[in-house]
Amino acid sequence: MPDKIIRNIRLTIEYDGTDYCGWQVQSRNSSKKSIQAVIEKALQKILQEKIKLIGSGRTDAGVHALAQVANFRTKAKIPATNLQKALNSILPDDISIFKAEDVKPDFHSRFSAKSKIYRYTILNRSYPSALSRNTAYFFTYPLNVKLMQKESRVLLGRHNFKSFQLTQKQEKNPVRTIEQIRVQKKADLIHIDIEADGFLYNMVRSIAGTLIEIGRGKLAPGSLKRILFAKNRKFAGPTALARGLCLLEVKY
Amino acid sequence: MPDKIIRNIRLTIEYDGTDYCGWQVQSRNSSKKSIQAVIEKALQKILQEKIKLIGSGRTDAGVHALAQVANFRTKAKIPATNLQKALNSILPDDISIFKAEDVKPDFHSRFSAKSKIYRYTILNRSYPSALSRNTAYFFTYPLNVKLMQKESRVLLGRHNFKSFQLTQKQEKNPVRTIEQIRVQKKADLIHIDIEADGFLYNMVRSIAGTLIEIGRGKLAPGSLKRILFAKNRKFAGPTALARGLCLLEVKY
Repeated sequence: MPDKIIRNIRLTIEYDGTDYCGWQVQSRNSSKKSIQAVIEKALQKILQEKIKLIGSGRTDAGVHALAQVANFRTKAKIPATNLQKALNSILPDDISIFKAEDVKPDFHSRFSAKSKIYRYTILNRSYPSALSRNTAYFFTYPLNVKLMQKESRVLLGRHNFKSFQLTQKQEKNPVRTIEQIRVQKKADLIHIDIEADGFLYNMVRSIAGTLIEIGRGKLAPGSLKRILFAKNRKFAGPTALARGLCLLEVKY
Repeated sequence: MPDKIIRNIRLTIEYDGTDYCGWQVQSRNSSKKSIQAVIEKALQKILQEKIKLIGSGRTDAGVHALAQVANFRTKAKIPATNLQKALNSILPDDISIFKAEDVKPDFHSRFSAKSKIYRYTILNRSYPSALSRNTAYFFTYPLNVKLMQKESRVLLGRHNFKSFQLTQKQEKNPVRTIEQIRVQKKADLIHIDIEADGFLYNMVRSIAGTLIEIGRGKLAPGSLKRILFAKNRKFAGPTALARGLCLLEVKY
């Protein structure tokens, strides 16, 4: 019998990624901190033990989360709700803990995830916005949202998404299933919501960049299908700016 | 006949007040810039002449605006839409020009204003929000929104609002007319919207602070009426934090 029970604690985390190098340290050149490292440090300060925090997945520099999920193991006895309060009291204002809860020993933030939902937000008008400068991609040319919505449907289902992944970070198996994709306009904002069982590196941002090219008329209707089947990143549109991207939910 | 026509140009301005000392310089001690000074400097750079920008009113340090209005006079011939673009290209990201337009010579941002609408936003839940940390006042105790809405109605109409103005900055005539007041809940956010023909210094923030005391049960129902008629600041609740306040609209 171990003298102390090892708990598995799950955190649900909101963050403004503007001032971070991303969820994880991705480059030795970055002078910015990673969100994971900042939370690990706070946990270690509270729990007085070494903590390894496992995220549901990485988010890039400048990308936000409304509900990122991460878990860690600890021998500490602090109730989860007290831990949440303690974390929120010492974490910087741009990271907040939405929830802390004990979960089963086999729960793993990444491997247990069934799907994730990302939102890409475009501010589509002729002048920028001071208040949403860090959470929306400002794009001046008028976009045809109905066309973007219609075209986006070709991505639904199980496909090889090689055309929408960063060329430098190819995965062996680029097959993913997009379960939902929705393009909707609310006043000056256009939201592209994508739910999938997994995402390749830069997948949402390159899909968003391609849909923008379609919406502004630079790519003809039907292009998205052609690009998807080409399985080659060079046919897709540019990778849209990180600030427009937000991880909305991880489903288990 | 003057050799050059003097134009009167009106700007509609959105700003994130977080990093500013307010619309105007209010204290020599502040190391932060004023929004007015930053826009004046940008105008002078573009128009190559001395510009005096008149705002519809001051906003405090940390207070935001979705549509502040200001006007200035110039001899420059640049079309207003080009001026808007030029301003947006050189202004910092936390100030954006929503509109620039020629207006009649007698238009004055402050004196011509018929009413203004301010919104005070409270994030009412047990844990803070990273993404709205600068635009909402985080308040953990549960608030009774229906009671706040009901109580707030006593403020409607023409009253002496002396109880809701900063003691150090008393105005000779503290009579104002509140035309609309609305308290509404949207998910975790509570918005207090107030339209009036004018506002005393700190008026919205001290009304918000008092409504919060009522909503959490620290002040009994009926208190707002008593406080209003007392005409004494010491009976009202605390001045709610600046970050929750936003100037939504100026009506002419």
